[in-house]
Amino acid sequence: MDKFLGFNSELSEAEIVFLGLPFDGTVTFRPGSRFAPHAVRAMSEGIETYSPYQKKDLENKLIGDYGDLLLPFGNTAKTMQLIEAKAEELLEDGKKILSCGGEHLVSYPIIKAYARKYPEISVIHIDAHTDLREHYLGEKLSHASVIKLVCNHINPQNIYQYGIRSGQKVEFEWAEKNTNFYPFSLEKITELPKNNPIYLTLDLDVLDPAYLPGTGTPEPGGLSFNELLEGLLKLQGSNIVGADIVELSPDYDHSGASTMVAVKLIRELALLFG
Amino acid sequence: MDKFLGFNSELSEAEIVFLGLPFDGTVTFRPGSRFAPHAVRAMSEGIETYSPYQKKDLENKLIGDYGDLLLPFGNTAKTMQLIEAKAEELLEDGKKILSCGGEHLVSYPIIKAYARKYPEISVIHIDAHTDLREHYLGEKLSHASVIKLVCNHINPQNIYQYGIRSGQKVEFEWAEKNTNFYPFSLEKITELPKNNPIYLTLDLDVLDPAYLPGTGTPEPGGLSFNELLEGLLKLQGSNIVGADIVELSPDYDHSGASTMVAVKLIRELALLFG
Amino acid sequence: MDKFLGFNSELSEAEIVFLGLPFDGTVTFRPGSRFAPHAVRAMSEGIETYSPYQKKDLENKLIGDYGDLLLPFGNTAKTMQLIEAKAEELLEDGKKILSCGGEHLVSYPIIKAYARKYPEISVIHIDAHTDLREHYLGEKLSHASVIKLVCNHINPQNIYQYGIRSGQKVEFEWAEKNTNFYPFSLEKITELPKNNPIYLTLDLDVLDPAYLPGTGTPEPGGLSFNELLEGLLKLQGSNIVGADIVELSPDYDHSGASTMVAVKLIRELALLFG
Amino acid sequence: MDKFLGFNSELSEAEIVFLGLPFDGTVTFRPGSRFAPHAVRAMSEGIETYSPYQKKDLENKLIGDYGDLLLPFGNTAKTMQLIEAKAEELLEDGKKILSCGGEHLVSYPIIKAYARKYPEISVIHIDAHTDLREHYLGEKLSHASVIKLVCNHINPQNIYQYGIRSGQKVEFEWAEKNTNFYPFSLEKITELPKNNPIYLTLDLDVLDPAYLPGTGTPEPGGLSFNELLEGLLKLQGSNIVGADIVELSPDYDHSGASTMVAVKLIRELALLFG
Amino acid sequence: MDKFLGFNSELSEAEIVFLGLPFDGTVTFRPGSRFAPHAVRAMSEGIETYSPYQKKDLENKLIGDYGDLLLPFGNTAKTMQLIEAKAEELLEDGKKILSCGGEHLVSYPIIKAYARKYPEISVIHIDAHTDLREHYLGEKLSHASVIKLVCNHINPQNIYQYGIRSGQKVEFEWAEKNTNFYPFSLEKITELPKNNPIYLTLDLDVLDPAYLPGTGTPEPGGLSFNELLEGLLKLQGSNIVGADIVELSPDYDHSGASTMVAVKLIRELALLFG
Amino acid sequence: MDKFLGFNSELSEAEIVFLGLPFDGTVTFRPGSRFAPHAVRAMSEGIETYSPYQKKDLENKLIGDYGDLLLPFGNTAKTMQLIEAKAEELLEDGKKILSCGGEHLVSYPIIKAYARKYPEISVIHIDAHTDLREHYLGEKLSHASVIKLVCNHINPQNIYQYGIRSGQKVEFEWAEKNTNFYPFSLEKITELPKNNPIYLTLDLDVLDPAYLPGTGTPEPGGLSFNELLEGLLKLQGSNIVGADIVELSPDYDHSGASTMVAVKLIRELALLFG
Repeated sequence: MDKFLGFNSELSEAEIVFLGLPFDGTVTFRPGSRFAPHAVRAMSEGIETYSPYQKKDLENKLIGDYGDLLLPFGNTAKTMQLIEAKAEELLEDGKKILSCGGEHLVSYPIIKAYARKYPEISVIHIDAHTDLREHYLGEKLSHASVIKLVCNHINPQNIYQYGIRSGQKVEFEWAEKNTNFYPFSLEKITELPKNNPIYLTLDLDVLDPAYLPGTGTPEPGGLSFNELLEGLLKLQGSNIVGADIVELSPDYDHSGASTMVAVKLIRELALLFG
Repeated sequence: MDKFLGFNSELSEAEIVFLGLPFDGTVTFRPGSRFAPHAVRAMSEGIETYSPYQKKDLENKLIGDYGDLLLPFGNTAKTMQLIEAKAEELLEDGKKILSCGGEHLVSYPIIKAYARKYPEISVIHIDAHTDLREHYLGEKLSHASVIKLVCNHINPQNIYQYGIRSGQKVEFEWAEKNTNFYPFSLEKITELPKNNPIYLTLDLDVLDPAYLPGTGTPEPGGLSFNELLEGLLKLQGSNIVGADIVELSPDYDHSGASTMVAVKLIRELALLFG
Repeated sequence: MDKFLGFNSELSEAEIVFLGLPFDGTVTFRPGSRFAPHAVRAMSEGIETYSPYQKKDLENKLIGDYGDLLLPFGNTAKTMQLIEAKAEELLEDGKKILSCGGEHLVSYPIIKAYARKYPEISVIHIDAHTDLREHYLGEKLSHASVIKLVCNHINPQNIYQYGIRSGQKVEFEWAEKNTNFYPFSLEKITELPKNNPIYLTLDLDVLDPAYLPGTGTPEPGGLSFNELLEGLLKLQGSNIVGADIVELSPDYDHSGASTMVAVKLIRELALLFG
Repeated sequence: MDKFLGFNSELSEAEIVFLGLPFDGTVTFRPGSRFAPHAVRAMSEGIETYSPYQKKDLENKLIGDYGDLLLPFGNTAKTMQLIEAKAEELLEDGKKILSCGGEHLVSYPIIKAYARKYPEISVIHIDAHTDLREHYLGEKLSHASVIKLVCNHINPQNIYQYGIRSGQKVEFEWAEKNTNFYPFSLEKITELPKNNPIYLTLDLDVLDPAYLPGTGTPEPGGLSFNELLEGLLKLQGSNIVGADIVELSPDYDHSGASTMVAVKLIRELALLFG
Repeated sequence: MDKFLGFNSELSEAEIVFLGLPFDGTVTFRPGSRFAPHAVRAMSEGIETYSPYQKKDLENKLIGDYGDLLLPFGNTAKTMQLIEAKAEELLEDGKKILSCGGEHLVSYPIIKAYARKYPEISVIHIDAHTDLREHYLGEKLSHASVIKLVCNHINPQNIYQYGIRSGQKVEFEWAEKNTNFYPFSLEKITELPKNNPIYLTLDLDVLDPAYLPGTGTPEPGGLSFNELLEGLLKLQGSNIVGADIVELSPDYDHSGASTMVAVKLIRELALLFG
Repeated sequence: MDKFLGFNSELSEAEIVFLGLPFDGTVTFRPGSRFAPHAVRAMSEGIETYSPYQKKDLENKLIGDYGDLLLPFGNTAKTMQLIEAKAEELLEDGKKILSCGGEHLVSYPIIKAYARKYPEISVIHIDAHTDLREHYLGEKLSHASVIKLVCNHINPQNIYQYGIRSGQKVEFEWAEKNTNFYPFSLEKITELPKNNPIYLTLDLDVLDPAYLPGTGTPEPGGLSFNELLEGLLKLQGSNIVGADIVELSPDYDHSGASTMVAVKLIRELALLFG
C-alpha cells in the first residue's frame, strides 16, 4: 500500500493512526467518496511535510497509516459494526484516530467509540449541511442523519456546529434549540470548554464548491480554504484526540485540486493533534 | 418533464412561472447555454426548498414550471418573436416570469414585453460584460448587444448596471454617460428608486470563474458567490416583477458545481419575487 | 501561427516581444505546461484588448508575438542554452521580453540574460513555492531550484519573494535570511527600490487552485485573482523591463477558466511594461 | 418526469412498461449506474423512433414510461423487496417489463417475479462476467452473485450465458457443468428452446470498452456494438416477455456515446418484445 | 494562423485550398463543431505527412491553408451566402476545395457552387443520417436537410449515399426511390460512373462512436476507422474535385482521438484529390 | 506501495519481476506516460487473476512487484544508465523482467542489458510507429528513435516489427530493407525462429485509439484489442524471457478503459512468460 506522505511510523509505535474508510453506501445523490482514501494517498506526494502555518513537520510526529478498512458494500449495519470495532481496538491500544471517509456516516461509529472512552468529549461538527434528519427515505443509518445519530451518544450541548448553510427548516430549528449552533462561518470556533478532549468531524463540503468541486453535494456559498484553515489553526493548543475528514469525491475532481485540499487539511489536522 | 425542485404549482394557479429558454444561437465563442434549463432541473434535487438566508421555503410559494420553449436554431429573428409572444401571453395572464437562458440575448424579448406592461420599470443588469455593442460582425441581434437593444425600449436612465469588468472602451464610455453604471461590484445595488417595479437580468458570468467555470466566456476577477448573494439579498422587500438568469454552460461544468450555483440562485430569486 | 490577441506588431517594430517557451522537462509531478503558450493564444480571442483597470488598450502598444522557441525535450542543459541565447539576442535588439512557460525553470536563462544587461535589476518572484532547493533528485537544473539558480547571478538582496506558502523548512529559513521574503500575500509588493529596473517572474500557482486548477502542483490557500491583480496594479508606473508567466497546465483546465486567467494576466502585464 | 423518446402510452394502456431502477449499492469497484435511467431518458432525444434494422417504429407500440422506483440506499434487502413487489404488481396487471438499472443485482428480484409467473421461462444472460459468486466479501446479495441467486429460482438448464470473458476459475467450471455456457461471443444465441417465454438480461459490459467506456468494470476484449446488435436481432420472432439492461455508468461516459449505446439498445429491445 | 501540417503552399500557387467553416448554428442537439477547424490544425502536428496507405507525401502536393471564413452566428441565410461566394471565388481561380466544418449544412453552399461549375458532378454522401428532412422545426436551412437541399441543384440520380443507419421512415423510403442508396456500409462505394468529377461530403458520424465519440449526434453501430479508410482508398484514381469533412465536435473529444481521426482523414482526402 | 494484482511473491523468490519505469522526458507531443505504472496498479483490482484465454492463474506464478525506479526528470542520459544498471542487476539475479513505461525510450536500456545476456535474442516490436529516426530535433535519445538505437546492439535481422502504420518514408524504406517488417497487422507474428529467446516490446498505440484513447500520440487505424490479444496468444509456448508495455498515458484516459486494457495485457504477458 502507498502510504500518505510522512505517515511512516510502524503502527505499533504510532501515536496517531490514519485510517481509510472507503464507504459511500447511503449516499442518495452522487456517490464516489469511497475513492477518497486512495486518492489522498496518491496525491500526497505533491505537498511538503512541513507546515509553514504551524511551523511543524510531519517528520517529527509518530503517525502510522493503517490503510483502508475492508467494508462490505450494500450492508450498512455491518459496515457500522466493523468501523466501530476497529475504532474501539485502536482506542484501547492508546492510539488517536485520524480517519478519512467515505461519506459522513462513517463518523458515527467512530464517535460512538470515542464517547465510551471520553464521556465528556466535545464534538466539533464543520459542515455545509445540518445532518440532523430523523431518517432519509425511511433509513435511520443515513449520511443525512449522522449528527442526529451521534446525539444518541453525546449530549447535544457538547456538540458545536459550524459553517452550516443548508437543511430543512425543522433541522435548523432543532439545532438552534439543542446544539451549539453557529451557522455560515467558523468565527466562533473557540466557543468551547477549555481542556475538554475534542473530536473534530470535518465534512469538506463546508468549503465553497469553488474550492472543493469534488464532493457529492456541492453547496454554493461556503468558506474559502483560508477561512477554513484559519478556523482550524485557532484550535492550536487545544486537546484534539480524534478527527475525521469526509465527503471528498475524486470522480468530480477533474483537476485534482479538491483532492489536494483534502491532502493539505489532513497534514494540518495531523499536526494539530494534542 | 422533470420539474425544478419545489416549482410544483399548476400553471393556472401559479403566480410565478419558471420558463426555460434553451437558445445560444448568436454566441460566437463557446456555445452550450442551451443545455442550462435541463441541467438546472436535474441538479435541483441536490438542494433544499428552504432558504436559511431568507428564512422562506419554496413550498409556500405558488410557482409553476412551464418547461422549455421550443425554439428554431439558426433563425434568431423568429426565436425573438416566439419568446416575446410567450412573455406577453404570460404577463397578460397576470403571471410573473422567472426565465432561464440560454444566452443573454433571450432577455431582450422578455424585457420588451415587460416594458409594455410596466413603462416605468427599472432594469437591474448584473454582468461581467457591458453588452452594449451596436452590432457584432454586422448582426444587431447578438448576445453582445442585448442591453443596447433594451435601450430602444427602456430609458437608459432606468437601467442599473453592476459588476461589469469587460468591454470595449467605447462601451464603458457610453455606459458612464447614459446608464446608472456601477462597474466591478454590487455595492451600490440599492441605488434605485423605491417602489418602482424591477426587472433583474443576471448574467452568471458576473461571478468569478472560480465560482462559475461553466460559462461560455469566463472573465476572471469577478464576484464570489457570497458577494453576489449578499447583493441580491439587499433587494428583499423591493418590487421584483420579473427576472432571468443566463449564460450557464453545463458542458464546461465538469463537476456540476456551476450548475448548482445557478440552482441555488434560482431558488433565492424565486423567493425574492414581490 | 495564431497570434495572441492584440500582439500584432511586426517583430522589427515591436518594443515588447511575447515569447512562448513550451518546456516542462524537469517537472516531476504533473507535466503539461508545455501546452500553455498555444492555449493562451487560442483562448485570447475571448477577451477584450482594453483594460478597464489600467484604462489602456493593447492596440496602443507595440507588441509582437515571436511564437514559440523550438526546444529539445529530454536535454535540459541544451534547452537552457537555447533560451538564454534567444533572450540575449532580443535584449541586444532593444526589445523587452514577456515570456510564457512552460515550467518555472525557463525563467532562469531569461533572468541570466537580463542580469548581464541590467546588473542592478530587482527580481520580483511571485509563487506558492520557495523554489530554493539546492537540487532535486540530484539535478541542479530543476523547477524546484530556479530561484536558487538565479541567486548565482543576482544578489539575493535584490530578490523580492511574495505569496509563498510551501517549501521545506530549510528553504523558508534560507529565504528569511537572504532574500526579501514576504510569504502568504502580496501586501508588501511595493517594498522595492524606486526607479530600479524590475523583472517580474509570476508562477501562476500563487493563485489558489479555486482560481487556477490548471497547474501542475496546486497548493491550496493561495491568492484570489483579484488579490493578485490588485498587487500587480500597484506596480503601475514602475520600471518593468521584463516578465514571465509560468506553470499553467492546460490539461488540468477542463473548463478553460485557468487559461483565461493567464490570458488576462498577460494582457495586464503587457500594459504594465515601462 | 422526462419520458424516454417514444414511450408515450399511458401506463393503463401500455403493454410494455419501462422501469428505471437507480440502484448501485453493492458495487465495490466504481459506482454510478444509479444515474443511468435519468441519462438514457435525457439522451434519447438524439435518436429516431424508427429502427431501420427491424423496420419498426416505437410510435406503433404501446409502451409507457413508469419513471424510476424510489429505492433506499444502504439497505439492499429492502431494495430487493421493493423491486420484486413492483415487478409482481406489473406482471399481475398483464404488463411486460423492460427495466433499466442500476447495477446487475436489480435483475434478481425482477427475474424472481417472472419465475413465478412463467415457471418454464428461459433466461438469456449476456455479460462480460460470470456473476456466479457464492458471495462477495461475505454478502450474498451482490452484483457479482446475481446469476447464482437466480439459480435458486430458475433451473440452471434454462439459463443461457453469452459473451462471458471474465471470472474466477471455479465460476467458469461451474457454468460449464450447469448452465448453457457459450463464452466470448453471441454466435450461439439461437440455441434455446422455441416458443418458450424468454427473459433477457443484458449487462452492457459485454461490449468492449471501446464501445462502452461508461461502465463500472470495463473488461477489454468484448463485442462490438454491431456484433451485439446482430445477436439480438436473431431473436426477432421469439417470445421475449421481459428484459433489462444494466451497468451503464454515465459518470465515466464523458462523450455521451456510451449512454447513446444504451439508448439505441433500449429502442431495439422494446421493438423485439413479443 | 497555425497551418494544417504540410499545407504550406501559398494560396496563389495552391491547387487545393483547405478552408475552415466554423459554423454550427442550426444544430439542435449538441453544438461545438465550430471548433473543429482550429482543433484539427493544432492536432495535425501529431501525424506524419507521409501516407503508407497511398505511398504519397503531402510535401509533394500544392496545398494551401486559407484559414477560417469569418461567419456571423445567428444568421444562417447570410452564412450560406458568404460560404457560397467564397467557394465560387476559389473555383473561378481554378482551385479545388477541401473544406472542414462545422456542421453538415456548410456543405450545401459549397456543393451549390460546384454544381454550377460541374453540372454532371457526382456527389458521394457518407453519413450516419439520411439528412433528407424537408425542414426541421419549420426551418429549411438545417443540418438535417442538407442533402434534400442539395437535391434542388443536383439530380438525385447523381447522389450516392453510403453508411446511413438512422432517419425517419419517410426519409429511408424517399432515398430508396430517388438516390443511389447503399445504407449501413461502404461496400458499394465504387458504384458510380467512371470519369465523372466527384464531390465527396463526409459526415464523420458515419464512424461508430467508439472511433469518433467527439461528434454532436453519436449513432452507435457505424463503421470502424479501417472500414472507412478502405472505402475511401477505393476511390484512388477517380476524379475527386472537391471534398468536405464535417461534424467533428472537439468538446466531446476529451482524449483528442476523434480529432486525430479527422486529421488523418484530411491527410488521406488531400492525397486522394485528382 | 500498492502491488499489481496477483504479483505477490517476495522479490527474492520471484521468477518474474514487474518493474515500473515512470519516465516520459523525451516526448515532444503529449506527455503523461510517467503516470502509467501507478495507474495500472490501482486499476488492477478490477480484473481477475484467472485468464480464461490461457486457462492459467497469476496465483500459480512466482511474480514480484519491484515498484517504480526513481528517475531524474530532465536528464535523459542518466535515466538510461539507471534503468540499464537495474536491468543488469535483475538479470544477473536470474530474474525475467516485465516492465511498464513510461515512454518507449525506456525499452532501450532494458534491451541493451538483455542483448548482453542473450546475444541471439529475437526482439518483437509491436507498435503504430516505426521508431527508426536517427534523431529527433537533434537528440539521439528519443522515443522516436528507440528501435534505431536498439539496432546498435541487436542485429536488425533479429528484429520483428508488427502493426506499424506511421512513419517517415525513409523509415519505412529502411525497415523494409533491414528488419523483418510486417506493417499494419500481427498476422505474421509466428514468423520467427523457434526456440530462440524472445524479448517483446509492446507500444500500446498499436491499438486503434478506439480501444486505447489514453496514449500520447493516438494513430487511428490500428488493431482491435482482440486482434492484439489473438496475436499475443499465438506466442504461447515460445520462450519469452522479457517484455515491456509502454506509452499508456492515463491523463487522456478519462473513463479508465485504456488503463484497463494495459492491466489485462500485463496479466496475459505475465502468463505468457516461458
